[in-house]
Amino acid sequence: MSSFNALPKGVTEADFTKAIKEYRALMGEDRVRTDSASLQSYSKIMCPVSEELHKPSAAMYPKTVKEIQAIVGIANKYKTPLWTISTGKNFGYGSAAPATRGQIVLDLKTMDKIIHVDEELGYCLVEPGVTYYDIQKYIKKHKMNLMISVPSPSAIVGPVGNSLDRGAGYTPYGDHFLFSCGMEVVLANGDVVRTGMGGVPNSTSWQATKWGSGPYVDGIFTQSNYGIVTKMGFWLMKTPPPGGYLPFLMKFPKVEMLPDIIKTIMPLRLSQLIPNACVVVNSLLEAACLCNYDENGKGMSRDTFYKGKGVLPPHVIQQIIEKCNIGAWSFYAAIYGTPEQVALAWKYVSGSFKAKFGNQVEIITEKEAKDDTNFEFRRQMMMGGSSLQEFTYYNWRGGGGSVWFAPVAAARPSESYKQVKIATDVLNKHGFDYLAEYIIGWREMHHIIDLLYDRTQPEETARAYKCYDELLKVFAKNGYGIYRTNPAFMEKAADTFGPEMRKIHHNLKKALDPNNILAPGKSGISLG
Amino acid sequence: MSSFNALPKGVTEADFTKAIKEYRALMGEDRVRTDSASLQSYSKIMCPVSEELHKPSAAMYPKTVKEIQAIVGIANKYKTPLWTISTGKNFGYGSAAPATRGQIVLDLKTMDKIIHVDEELGYCLVEPGVTYYDIQKYIKKHKMNLMISVPSPSAIVGPVGNSLDRGAGYTPYGDHFLFSCGMEVVLANGDVVRTGMGGVPNSTSWQATKWGSGPYVDGIFTQSNYGIVTKMGFWLMKTPPPGGYLPFLMKFPKVEMLPDIIKTIMPLRLSQLIPNACVVVNSLLEAACLCNYDENGKGMSRDTFYKGKGVLPPHVIQQIIEKCNIGAWSFYAAIYGTPEQVALAWKYVSGSFKAKFGNQVEIITEKEAKDDTNFEFRRQMMMGGSSLQEFTYYNWRGGGGSVWFAPVAAARPSESYKQVKIATDVLNKHGFDYLAEYIIGWREMHHIIDLLYDRTQPEETARAYKCYDELLKVFAKNGYGIYRTNPAFMEKAADTFGPEMRKIHHNLKKALDPNNILAPGKSGISLG
Repeated sequence: MSSFNALPKGVTEADFTKAIKEYRALMGEDRVRTDSASLQSYSKIMCPVSEELHKPSAAMYPKTVKEIQAIVGIANKYKTPLWTISTGKNFGYGSAAPATRGQIVLDLKTMDKIIHVDEELGYCLVEPGVTYYDIQKYIKKHKMNLMISVPSPSAIVGPVGNSLDRGAGYTPYGDHFLFSCGMEVVLANGDVVRTGMGGVPNSTSWQATKWGSGPYVDGIFTQSNYGIVTKMGFWLMKTPPPGGYLPFLMKFPKVEMLPDIIKTIMPLRLSQLIPNACVVVNSLLEAACLCNYDENGKGMSRDTFYKGKGVLPPHVIQQIIEKCNIGAWSFYAAIYGTPEQVALAWKYVSGSFKAKFGNQVEIITEKEAKDDTNFEFRRQMMMGGSSLQEFTYYNWRGGGGSVWFAPVAAARPSESYKQVKIATDVLNKHGFDYLAEYIIGWREMHHIIDLLYDRTQPEETARAYKCYDELLKVFAKNGYGIYRTNPAFMEKAADTFGPEMRKIHHNLKKALDPNNILAPGKSGISLG
Repeated sequence: MSSFNALPKGVTEADFTKAIKEYRALMGEDRVRTDSASLQSYSKIMCPVSEELHKPSAAMYPKTVKEIQAIVGIANKYKTPLWTISTGKNFGYGSAAPATRGQIVLDLKTMDKIIHVDEELGYCLVEPGVTYYDIQKYIKKHKMNLMISVPSPSAIVGPVGNSLDRGAGYTPYGDHFLFSCGMEVVLANGDVVRTGMGGVPNSTSWQATKWGSGPYVDGIFTQSNYGIVTKMGFWLMKTPPPGGYLPFLMKFPKVEMLPDIIKTIMPLRLSQLIPNACVVVNSLLEAACLCNYDENGKGMSRDTFYKGKGVLPPHVIQQIIEKCNIGAWSFYAAIYGTPEQVALAWKYVSGSFKAKFGNQVEIITEKEAKDDTNFEFRRQMMMGGSSLQEFTYYNWRGGGGSVWFAPVAAARPSESYKQVKIATDVLNKHGFDYLAEYIIGWREMHHIIDLLYDRTQPEETARAYKCYDELLKVFAKNGYGIYRTNPAFMEKAADTFGPEMRKIHHNLKKALDPNNILAPGKSGISLG
């Protein structure tokens, strides 16, 4: 029996002991933890498999780039794999747990410096431990006229981790990696490299221009394990003037209306009349976000409406829609600009929907929304605010399991309702409800399906695994790849993109990390 | 004496003969040319060195992806390097000539299929030989409400080559690589890979979403030699409705006004009130674009104003400004939208400049421009039209030599006039005038300096080389990297970005093209 929580594959207890000793010589005992209590938070996984498969061996907290350079040196020497996390709150996509058992979690939350926020050009340069909330506070403190695009859990996660996983947000800069600019990366060989213009000593444009000279490499450090990103730049938006922000909600009564909703959105989206990432939420996810069930058994949840077995029957879903006063689809977006611009754009936007849907659409702006909690958190998010309201859906079904299955499609009417039917069929077959939202970017839509399950029940966890597995197969068969996944499915997800791409990923790994020490298994990439 | 035009380094005449035989067995004699006459057009280089250094050994014209797969097989066998070009009109950045002597030019102009143009979502998928003009014709023929962002020589160059070299255009989608979506690449090992969502069989979103799953690799195929791109997708803009396009020109009388011009532009640019890539042109480049000197010695050129030795003296530049009725700086941009949106935005844009400059700015729209040729070609380009008017500047100085030196900086007032002074000093020292324009993207400005010289004069060509070399050094010393360069300076340009990035580029080359057969020397990357 090992004295460690877990050991990396192929590393002996003796070697691991030596490695830990060297890591501690570098950073002290406090910042190199192997006790179970310290590792607890890295073992709480959010994917439908046994935690045993993803148990870490240790956790380390570097503070400087120099320390990380030394760490990769030791890792190469003893072949101890390093699973790097930024804030470790990768909700729905695996949380903080490593892809394979025994990896050392390299937790960068201790690298939390906001290096620069530039008001003139609108950008920031930050370390991986910096959260969106930290940046919001900084902007507020310095009274800067700026806002940052945020994902749902922005209060506790950060732009480096989110953007490296190619997360999506809800503002005009909602494609977070697209609006990132410049990285500093520690490579497995210990080199520190600055991408883009950052390689030129005293560069003045590292965060101003995305490309440098020669091959643009930033992309290969996203959803990958080719380096440890220690600094990253992000473009920020100017805050609109008073009266220059108009968030809105449109409620639609019938699920079959989805193609027409997408059809009406897209010309407005392509012309930038609606400049932000639109969200079209289905009834159950919208209801789950209103869940206020507490530990004393008080409040509203799925249980309030249905105590039977199996999936929610259609008539219950209809009751939920009526009781919660929500749409079969709820479409959230916003308009930004000067008050005059906003008024003009709103004339076109609201006019398009009224013309198409007549009295079949209920249009809600701040005035009508009053104290609608869902409207409120969407309103905040679409202008770069923080709220965790959305995460109340963890309590909707009970048991707290939640994995996101997230296929991407072209944002076409023809691709929308079709997917709803495919997803609902597979989910229902395995005993799960269909809760989902479409996030509509420039020309694509991320179909974020929330597979809620009871993770305290092994049978249900196993069923959730099978369900996700079938979703992956069925969607791939229909031509849909997923944009992001949790460690339990990284290997299988990578397979759906074909053997040639996997070979490229493998060859790049050999070139940049021949000892396979950086996060083996991330995105299905490993030399082991 | 070889019977070939040139031979690749390290390849014997006997081996090269065998290789050509195999290439001809594959494609026939017509599509594998080694005679000097056929190679003439690939030897006309546009960089200030001897053509001898860049002489090709052969030229080949594949028609299919399968042929290219077979070609890389033969190339690996005989180690014959392949210099891939799309249309071969890389003006200012080296034209079609290979980086090193003896490479076989793989000319993809024979792969000229427009595979798909999607009006619903606004994108196209094309082969490398397709020109912007071809796409414009296609759109017109099919009466589609679309426009494509173009670079200056759009009538004869194509989006694949331009975007792979990370070229810039003048529309809201002016960052051409940023608005590309999805590639098909033949690797050196013969694999064909589709990037992004293209790897999923029957994908419906290859041109709708830029990212796939796992590391995003498209970037490493730009400004590089890691693969041969055989198909590439591009996002297209919707054509604005009648009255929804307002191109404008603002003329400023003094060079020192540049920082204030940038200062006034940037808030409008960041808020997308001006959504396109702005251009701020200096007096001499603006005048050179008006050049109409012909082969009979008729018309206006530099010679019209100055017959003395050396650079144009300040008083002559002032005379040119007055005679040509141009600004010390000419700022071109445009507004797009509905007529109401355009009118509103124009109120803000023109208002900002009037408030800042009063009667020191002359504002010109279509109404005032009348038959101004410079306004006319800019007007066309900013809405995706084709014109070669700009290239009349080849005749401005005489001798037809033109290389672009193109540093990138943050788009700040403080970075603007400072660069003008640095550039002018170096250019004048070597006997060249300062002709330049700033192209202002999202947060950066490309400073495109046109080094015009007489390429019929060896002394002047040598001087132009020295001048470029010094510009590179001086700008790098001031923190400015260049975004693109010609083969003669690729090695030196790569050096300015530091040894760590060069090591990454080298390691990727080893991983993806171990025999160094793809365009050795491109961006300074070679295993030789």
